Amino acid sequence: MDYKTVGHDIYRLIESLYPICRSITGDGFRTSMQILQKDIPLELHEISSGTQVFDWVVPKEWNIRDAYIKNSRGEKVVDFQNSNLHILNYSLPVNRKVKLAELKEHLFSIPEHEDWIPYRTSYYKENWGFCITQKTLNNLNEEEYEVFIDSSLEDGHLTYGEFLIKGEIEDEFLISCHSCHPSLCNDNLSGMAVATYLAKHLSQKKLRYSYRFLFIPGTIGSITWLSLNENKISRIKHGLVIACVGDPGKMYYKRTRHGDAEIDRAVSHVLKHSGDEYEIVEFSPYGYDERQYSSPGFNLAVGNLSRTPHGRFPEYHTSADNLDLVKPDSLADSFSKYTEIINVVDNNKKYINTNPKGEPQLGKRGLYSTMGGRKDASNYEMSLLWVLNMSDGQNSLLDISERSGISFSSIIDAANALYEYGLLIDLQ
Amino acid sequence: MDYKTVGHDIYRLIESLYPICRSITGDGFRTSMQILQKDIPLELHEISSGTQVFDWVVPKEWNIRDAYIKNSRGEKVVDFQNSNLHILNYSLPVNRKVKLAELKEHLFSIPEHEDWIPYRTSYYKENWGFCITQKTLNNLNEEEYEVFIDSSLEDGHLTYGEFLIKGEIEDEFLISCHSCHPSLCNDNLSGMAVATYLAKHLSQKKLRYSYRFLFIPGTIGSITWLSLNENKISRIKHGLVIACVGDPGKMYYKRTRHGDAEIDRAVSHVLKHSGDEYEIVEFSPYGYDERQYSSPGFNLAVGNLSRTPHGRFPEYHTSADNLDLVKPDSLADSFSKYTEIINVVDNNKKYINTNPKGEPQLGKRGLYSTMGGRKDASNYEMSLLWVLNMSDGQNSLLDISERSGISFSSIIDAANALYEYGLLIDLQ
Amino acid sequence: MDYKTVGHDIYRLIESLYPICRSITGDGFRTSMQILQKDIPLELHEISSGTQVFDWVVPKEWNIRDAYIKNSRGEKVVDFQNSNLHILNYSLPVNRKVKLAELKEHLFSIPEHEDWIPYRTSYYKENWGFCITQKTLNNLNEEEYEVFIDSSLEDGHLTYGEFLIKGEIEDEFLISCHSCHPSLCNDNLSGMAVATYLAKHLSQKKLRYSYRFLFIPGTIGSITWLSLNENKISRIKHGLVIACVGDPGKMYYKRTRHGDAEIDRAVSHVLKHSGDEYEIVEFSPYGYDERQYSSPGFNLAVGNLSRTPHGRFPEYHTSADNLDLVKPDSLADSFSKYTEIINVVDNNKKYINTNPKGEPQLGKRGLYSTMGGRKDASNYEMSLLWVLNMSDGQNSLLDISERSGISFSSIIDAANALYEYGLLIDLQ
Repeated sequence: MDYKTVGHDIYRLIESLYPICRSITGDGFRTSMQILQKDIPLELHEISSGTQVFDWVVPKEWNIRDAYIKNSRGEKVVDFQNSNLHILNYSLPVNRKVKLAELKEHLFSIPEHEDWIPYRTSYYKENWGFCITQKTLNNLNEEEYEVFIDSSLEDGHLTYGEFLIKGEIEDEFLISCHSCHPSLCNDNLSGMAVATYLAKHLSQKKLRYSYRFLFIPGTIGSITWLSLNENKISRIKHGLVIACVGDPGKMYYKRTRHGDAEIDRAVSHVLKHSGDEYEIVEFSPYGYDERQYSSPGFNLAVGNLSRTPHGRFPEYHTSADNLDLVKPDSLADSFSKYTEIINVVDNNKKYINTNPKGEPQLGKRGLYSTMGGRKDASNYEMSLLWVLNMSDGQNSLLDISERSGISFSSIIDAANALYEYGLLIDLQ
Repeated sequence: MDYKTVGHDIYRLIESLYPICRSITGDGFRTSMQILQKDIPLELHEISSGTQVFDWVVPKEWNIRDAYIKNSRGEKVVDFQNSNLHILNYSLPVNRKVKLAELKEHLFSIPEHEDWIPYRTSYYKENWGFCITQKTLNNLNEEEYEVFIDSSLEDGHLTYGEFLIKGEIEDEFLISCHSCHPSLCNDNLSGMAVATYLAKHLSQKKLRYSYRFLFIPGTIGSITWLSLNENKISRIKHGLVIACVGDPGKMYYKRTRHGDAEIDRAVSHVLKHSGDEYEIVEFSPYGYDERQYSSPGFNLAVGNLSRTPHGRFPEYHTSADNLDLVKPDSLADSFSKYTEIINVVDNNKKYINTNPKGEPQLGKRGLYSTMGGRKDASNYEMSLLWVLNMSDGQNSLLDISERSGISFSSIIDAANALYEYGLLIDLQ
Repeated sequence: MDYKTVGHDIYRLIESLYPICRSITGDGFRTSMQILQKDIPLELHEISSGTQVFDWVVPKEWNIRDAYIKNSRGEKVVDFQNSNLHILNYSLPVNRKVKLAELKEHLFSIPEHEDWIPYRTSYYKENWGFCITQKTLNNLNEEEYEVFIDSSLEDGHLTYGEFLIKGEIEDEFLISCHSCHPSLCNDNLSGMAVATYLAKHLSQKKLRYSYRFLFIPGTIGSITWLSLNENKISRIKHGLVIACVGDPGKMYYKRTRHGDAEIDRAVSHVLKHSGDEYEIVEFSPYGYDERQYSSPGFNLAVGNLSRTPHGRFPEYHTSADNLDLVKPDSLADSFSKYTEIINVVDNNKKYINTNPKGEPQLGKRGLYSTMGGRKDASNYEMSLLWVLNMSDGQNSLLDISERSGISFSSIIDAANALYEYGLLIDLQ
């Protein structure tokens, strides 16, 4: 696989998704899924408004066509056509004249960055509003403004995309990304695009685990999926929530609620051996949809692997999270780290040494030097010895790799060689 | 509660106890208990001399009225009326003339501090003696001395004070202080006085645990109590031995024999969040009555929380451990730390999230902001999320506080709010 | 025991073993065992070539009488009589003339140390060769050489020595040393010689464990022993592989596969309290015969305690590992450390406090000062208190020593005193 090419492909997918005004429901979300369907056979689900999902109710469907604020001279001072961030997401339809004072109660800006438009939502409380730059706000005068929002909030559906790649076993690896943000690139288009390419890549490989990809609206989407798929949840053995994987920052991993689940150890192993800077933090119940997967009733081993995480880059949830913030190289690197991690988990089997009493005679099989007296064993010989010694059915290849300090790929090579000579058998 | 006032009240109680000559038995101990009875309804127990208590026997009762050494000119060179430390505690009655050489075998002084009188005892080996300053010792001449000790050592009783504050449950928190030292302020009047005010304070509160206060002679007192109350011992879930809590040094905690009992974690939590300096050390079987509570046959989770601990301040067990060494501010701070620790333990319950699948929708209950897109959750929101996520019946509020890094008081506030909305139920 | 004398005795034993040409089979090995039999009643075992031992087969027996290379002028340029390292160990018999080019394929030297002869073997692939200095190699000219090796490789036996010292119980402590190297002093004559003196020393003592000493050829010897003694293996509770114990370097311990077995803790305790520098590393499946004892089918708790370990000193497996490299003082120190470790393990029992409720009254038994009020307990009193407090049947004396920070010898003294007074009973 040419990672350089992949980076550019992923970037182009982000470009095509960028202009669309997404929300947790509505046509923007649907259109986005259709774009992904060009790359992967995503199955779309439509869940009716009003459906009870645990403690929540699927909300009405929101769609928007146009919105603006005109001043008394009829000039559009804010125009949804310029940026879909201008509208408070889930704004009710409005068409009236208001004084500045009243208008200001519905305006959101960022004083510290006067050229940036903030991203704000009001999904669960009926409201209307505009998000504008501080500069625009400063230029508003004491006059009457015409406020126009051509939106609808009506019974409809919540849409989500799902793609299951069946592996050798039914146990699953979950990759979940929220896909509900409008024109924001790092959060969350980078996650959607990298996940799409991961799915595309994995669907061409022979896999042990089954891989489930979810493209869902944040919070309500994961709650909805969990509520409607309770019978499948116990199959999920590992999972990663993906978002903010396009900026040039170092990788950042938030552990699962378990703290040392297999996925935690696999991520940690790959990052440690990457030679790149990274940061690993403990679980906390704030963040993305890992909050829901990690709720005590499910307690799934789902971590969150990003680059600079939400809230830690100034452009987060503003118009500055645009196509300049994400880089093909960073996207390629994220893609590469994810595939390596998946490779570790997928191959992390336990073997049994068929010759457990003393070492088998490797020399006669051509696996070990026949010249004695040398100072050290070769790295390959060390891998063989470690795999033989630790393969008592208790230790997985990752355990062996971690205990020996030898990279997972070397350990796998050794295990494969020993397996071919019948010196190992598979535990499963 | 006004801690400033409490510090002065505690100090005044120490002042009133200071002049009395206490020992492990006798009227000095009884009188002291009667003074405490003005503040708390202490129950006094009288155990007969000769009672077998495990490997020990309750000793004869000792009382003393007067003692002196006169030189050949009839001048009192040492006088019990000046300091009750002058007498070797538990000295037999004596009335005879002795040469200097013989007298010296019965004299104890501190060469390094020539103005201080040491505190010495001989409870379990019959003897007599005087504790004097090095200066006095240096001034003794080769002449005959009249030695007079008007004491009695006869069958009688060992006295101890006990006060049980009944809480919601029968499980107990033990606060134990030795009360057998004569005029020594930090060790042990500070412990007696702070314990008295803790008892007074707790008896006005609604409590989950029952709180047992013991005012006992050191070693033989705890052994006697344990021996006579074996049926109650299993109720003791937590405990602290209190002494040396009046000096200006930092707090010092010796862990229980368990090492990480709930009381150990509660003390550690409070000290860590106090912002003050402190020191925590591992259990060792030397020290105060925690030695007895922690004997392998009982193995109670009893720690020892002091300021500068026994043997670490030069005035320890000398006449310099006087009213100048203890400070109202330090007493108030010790009182405050103890009440905080008790508050943690008393409230350290486990709850169960009634809505464990996904997060409950906090916004519709007014517990969470309905405006989406902000950078971070508020501290209060974080506390709510942590309590919900961890309340699976396995984690106590202290567990949640420690894992989240959020103070126990914030976690309690969140738990109470969630409890009110029916989002938590009590595990008990 | 006078350790100074022991060091010199051990050194003299090395001197007597040094000239012999040992291999994994043959008369050199037998002669060496006979020398050891002057000190300890070693039992010799002879195992026929061709015997199947797990995945291996006992090889043919190799013996050598003479070998040389003569140049065209009939001068011996390499002569086995000068150093038995000159011959590739297990060389086939040869008697022919060869050109330099062909000869060079059978020559081994060390370019970095041009005066040193390397040690090389070819046990399991038939071959012949000479190990020579780089200087000799550089002086060889383009001429014809006469190559002569008077060796035999025929069906015969593999020899090993074994000595079992029976203790109070059948559980065993294994001391194993490979004894197959020719004239190499640190690796492995130092191990053989120290082990011999350990066996001699232990056979004069009253011991709890039984001690099994094995003097075996490396790898094939331990595999052979394990294969022929499977019924005895479960008795081995602790073990140490000994080699490289004569150089002046610091002690170096490689942990067992278990990582924290009793032997690991005993070694660590002794090294920590020695005041000397030392290094402890984790287990790895490379090294000496601990590789075989630690194979997953046996998983014995066998560590490797040396001074500078194999491969870490430049003289390793060269003619420079000679009588100058090993020192009587280092041998004595190794002997001393081994005896201390054995002492810890042999005495590491669990006791039960017969008076577990409260402390027993030590004063009335003369074990504790009867004068009260002192600042601290004596070290001896602290040992008594620790042993009493921890002797609940869960903690061994080593556990108590580690937790208290008090040396094992002090803890043993305290335990013996308490045992005499009936305050402890033996758990076994």
